[in-house]
Amino acid sequence: MSVPLGSMRIRSLLSFIQSVNQQRGLCNVPMRLVQFHRYGDGGVRVGVEQGEGLGVVDLKAFEPSMPSTMKGLLELGDEGLECAQRALSSGQCMLKRSDVRLLSPILAPEKVVCVGLNYRDHCLEQKAPIPKEPIIFSKFSNAITGPYDDIILPSESQEVDWEAELAFVIGRRGKHIKEEEALSYVAGFTVANDVSARDWQMKRNGKQWLLGKTFESFCPLGPALVTTDAVRDPHKLGIRCLVNGDAVQSSNTDQMIFKTEALISWVSKFVTLTPGDVFLTGTPPGVGLFRKPPVFLKKGDVVECQIDQLGSIINKVV
Amino acid sequence: MSVPLGSMRIRSLLSFIQSVNQQRGLCNVPMRLVQFHRYGDGGVRVGVEQGEGLGVVDLKAFEPSMPSTMKGLLELGDEGLECAQRALSSGQCMLKRSDVRLLSPILAPEKVVCVGLNYRDHCLEQKAPIPKEPIIFSKFSNAITGPYDDIILPSESQEVDWEAELAFVIGRRGKHIKEEEALSYVAGFTVANDVSARDWQMKRNGKQWLLGKTFESFCPLGPALVTTDAVRDPHKLGIRCLVNGDAVQSSNTDQMIFKTEALISWVSKFVTLTPGDVFLTGTPPGVGLFRKPPVFLKKGDVVECQIDQLGSIINKVV
Repeated sequence: MSVPLGSMRIRSLLSFIQSVNQQRGLCNVPMRLVQFHRYGDGGVRVGVEQGEGLGVVDLKAFEPSMPSTMKGLLELGDEGLECAQRALSSGQCMLKRSDVRLLSPILAPEKVVCVGLNYRDHCLEQKAPIPKEPIIFSKFSNAITGPYDDIILPSESQEVDWEAELAFVIGRRGKHIKEEEALSYVAGFTVANDVSARDWQMKRNGKQWLLGKTFESFCPLGPALVTTDAVRDPHKLGIRCLVNGDAVQSSNTDQMIFKTEALISWVSKFVTLTPGDVFLTGTPPGVGLFRKPPVFLKKGDVVECQIDQLGSIINKVV
Repeated sequence: MSVPLGSMRIRSLLSFIQSVNQQRGLCNVPMRLVQFHRYGDGGVRVGVEQGEGLGVVDLKAFEPSMPSTMKGLLELGDEGLECAQRALSSGQCMLKRSDVRLLSPILAPEKVVCVGLNYRDHCLEQKAPIPKEPIIFSKFSNAITGPYDDIILPSESQEVDWEAELAFVIGRRGKHIKEEEALSYVAGFTVANDVSARDWQMKRNGKQWLLGKTFESFCPLGPALVTTDAVRDPHKLGIRCLVNGDAVQSSNTDQMIFKTEALISWVSKFVTLTPGDVFLTGTPPGVGLFRKPPVFLKKGDVVECQIDQLGSIINKVV
């Protein structure tokens, strides 16, 4: 009798662990997921970085049944993330960094959700009242560009500005999500530059921000999607922007007024969130618009956005 | 010598015709393209209506190599449209209307581009100045719903309003498109209801319109994508909205301030347009917000938006 009872106990323990994990949401695997091209082979691939700037495991080479895009991987849920974890542990299918070009960790999401005026210190900088509710706007997804790609100055704007931001990516589908469950819907965090044409954002288009925010290349993202369990506290991370090496923004995500959980809960009142949806969570002070005199990006400038534990994106202005 | 010369002449004539057609853009085939479900079979299919409310040719049944979504069909360009034309002419693979449920003619477009204050008479109604440039905003694509599907009243809004609008769908990729070539980028026209939560649009979210416009089911579209050559003049069409059978909006697309060509040229300064992108071109007067007293939609209301030559969408409010 003792053997079946023992195995029942083990089974119920396993099932308990499984149910806890399910409540938690996505499986807890600290990883740096990337999308990349291999030089000489144009296709998008999903990979796992050994560390920022280190070699990349080619997931599809490790397991051919895996999808070749991050959105496809996220749609698989835990199955995809566990496979990525096995691939990383295996030490196989490793590509040298010099053989790959990183792309944005997510492409063609259904939504790019952006938040305005979400840092206390950024509100103070422009003497704006602290918002009582999140201010939500959007970019079209074709504004997204890679972590080291160029920011293209459009001839239509004379006032292109930087905004270093913490971004996160949704890992599973949900509507009317409660704050206390919201983090379980996040696949991971990454760095964004919410590039903004201030003339179009502030003075034209009936003051609707969309056009000034959505020129092509106005959403550099990356370098990696750092899974939620790999980030100690997403709301206690140093965040900086450097233009030509000079620090122009330097703050901490602890200044965010509406944190990840509140933003997910808020936006999911309006729309169903789906795997791959990107949130840009707002910028700290130090943007060019509020400098005296204002400073805007010009051809040849190099903009670097850094967030502790996540990494840097570096984009040249052309 | 005469035979080769003659065939050379025919070849150069054919190549001339081909180049003219290429300049023109998509092939000229007047059709009513639809997406549908067959009852008892959940998959999305593309079809061609014999006429509004008549039988539907199942394109994939006629030619199994054809895609099963409108976006896939549009991405094929002329090849797809010509096949749809052959399918319609064949009289084969016809489904009775009672066997199909029409869906929105396009699903999951990369962009839903919307235009504010684009009817002269709608500007007069609210004493707003005639805009000198188009005012562009957006919905997330998951607001899209079918031509006869329900509009879901969200508990978050007490001021849900109607807006009958002419919509068009992009048929081929382009950036910086000139007005004189713009119509060749249009796959066809359809009817939209730009459902709007006025409390969220006008009073909250920092006056950014997005949230008030993007609740789920806030973009009924259809019934068909009527190809550009099937519409005599898209800017001379009667447009009406009926609520519970009473005409609340009645105007003509000749009141549009920025017409299809101008909108395509304008928006393509900012972003690359891709097959499937949907434009909602603004609404005429008669919305609930500007009635005295204001009138908003309530459970049980039936909203019908009609445009001459395109058809009607009828959506119950639940």
